[in-house]
Amino acid sequence: METKLDLQRLSLNQITTENWSLEEAINGCVDHEIPVISVWRHKIAEVGLKEAKKMIAASGLNVSSVCRGGMFPALTSAERNERIEDNKVAIEEAAELGTDVLVLVCGPSPHKDIAEGRKWVQEGIEKIIPFAEQHNVKLGIEPLHPMFAADRSVITTLGEANTLQRSLGSSQVGVVIDAFHVWWDPFLYQEIDKAKGTILGYHVSDWKVPLPDLFKGRSMMGDGVIDLPRIRQAVEKNGYDGPIEVEIINQAIWDMPGDESLELIKERFLTTV
Amino acid sequence: METKLDLQRLSLNQITTENWSLEEAINGCVDHEIPVISVWRHKIAEVGLKEAKKMIAASGLNVSSVCRGGMFPALTSAERNERIEDNKVAIEEAAELGTDVLVLVCGPSPHKDIAEGRKWVQEGIEKIIPFAEQHNVKLGIEPLHPMFAADRSVITTLGEANTLQRSLGSSQVGVVIDAFHVWWDPFLYQEIDKAKGTILGYHVSDWKVPLPDLFKGRSMMGDGVIDLPRIRQAVEKNGYDGPIEVEIINQAIWDMPGDESLELIKERFLTTV
Repeated sequence: METKLDLQRLSLNQITTENWSLEEAINGCVDHEIPVISVWRHKIAEVGLKEAKKMIAASGLNVSSVCRGGMFPALTSAERNERIEDNKVAIEEAAELGTDVLVLVCGPSPHKDIAEGRKWVQEGIEKIIPFAEQHNVKLGIEPLHPMFAADRSVITTLGEANTLQRSLGSSQVGVVIDAFHVWWDPFLYQEIDKAKGTILGYHVSDWKVPLPDLFKGRSMMGDGVIDLPRIRQAVEKNGYDGPIEVEIINQAIWDMPGDESLELIKERFLTTV
Repeated sequence: METKLDLQRLSLNQITTENWSLEEAINGCVDHEIPVISVWRHKIAEVGLKEAKKMIAASGLNVSSVCRGGMFPALTSAERNERIEDNKVAIEEAAELGTDVLVLVCGPSPHKDIAEGRKWVQEGIEKIIPFAEQHNVKLGIEPLHPMFAADRSVITTLGEANTLQRSLGSSQVGVVIDAFHVWWDPFLYQEIDKAKGTILGYHVSDWKVPLPDLFKGRSMMGDGVIDLPRIRQAVEKNGYDGPIEVEIINQAIWDMPGDESLELIKERFLTTV
């Protein structure tokens, strides 16, 4: 039944080793033969884009994505324009680092009308599509778990992301599926089918009971309730065979020695994803 | 635009004053002229059903619901039958206490196949419908926020609850809408419309950022991001004009003197719900 995973598809999403600098994360991947990395913008900022680009080029690593653009909704058009400009910088960073995916965490609503927040997300993405095209960077709408609706993303289900992707009508826009955010959804497999051809990334971690924290709530693959192989296979069936990012936001895992964490990730990637 | 609320619709869901016994909660309602109470089974158990019934009858309070039945999924049919039997006891308790609503928190899946957990929920409700009919108690399916999918309820959206209600095909079954669980849902207002005529209860609290806790995460109405008047008006438009339960699970509110808490609830009920 299950297709075997290859470590060549493993990407270290850099937030998993939050205590490491970009240089340490790159070296960690090289040392542990992890071929792909996903880079966060706050880590790029620490060394500057030029230096980040040089380090990544020298390492031979591929970059699966840059995290993250988005955060579109804001009360005034001036603020919304600032967000647009910041997204353009993120697109440039992605292009410079040699990845064609910018992950979008779309942002919360600035007031109680969440529907208007959603409208601002759509407008924001619309406005950056031409710039993304010019830079050959795709925009990956990542639905976040509904528990983040108030502070991180008004886009809460894959269904919403798919609908948004379609209404934008651009091949420059796709979706990013993170198992932690979507596993609970009764329409998950139907929506993965609907996402066929637009899936730009797949992220894994696990949902452990009790959840260790709200924001830092993700656990190592295999330690929770998510049927990871089933979700992966649905994603693969619908055309995505690219890197699988391990993205774990969890204080206990951040506090592990990075080398141990990477070895555990490799083992769990092969046995539980 | 907004219809004015009347304190006659206020119901104290007893979990809001978790540090109080049933007797204290009843006395609190009487003292503060809150006309309705929702009773939890662990509080009934502390005094026994007979005594609980006597206290409530003497107080003159109405009972909006008993919390809670449900928890249907389990690995073996023997365990699932135990859950059924326990739900029958809950139905009897509701009938004895003079309410016609038993709230169902449907339960988590005992394994990674959440779809099978959902199937067991449907089977469980099916099995208790005849007993509920005999006792003149309606069964209110309460969808819980998806962050509780792993440990409390595989029924995560009002859409799911509505679909389940319809497929059960019994007027004995309806839905209970809790603003905290459903506010984020992009299909919320469509699904409230679809629930027309089947709404058995409406619960309020608020979603504060940052959330104080996962389980004890609810806040006082007015302290969060939920558009409570809009949700209430949608519920009313679709035929529900019964008691509105204030159900707040929050350690800080539990630790307040109950009398202060009740006064604050009354004020916020009138100004923010």
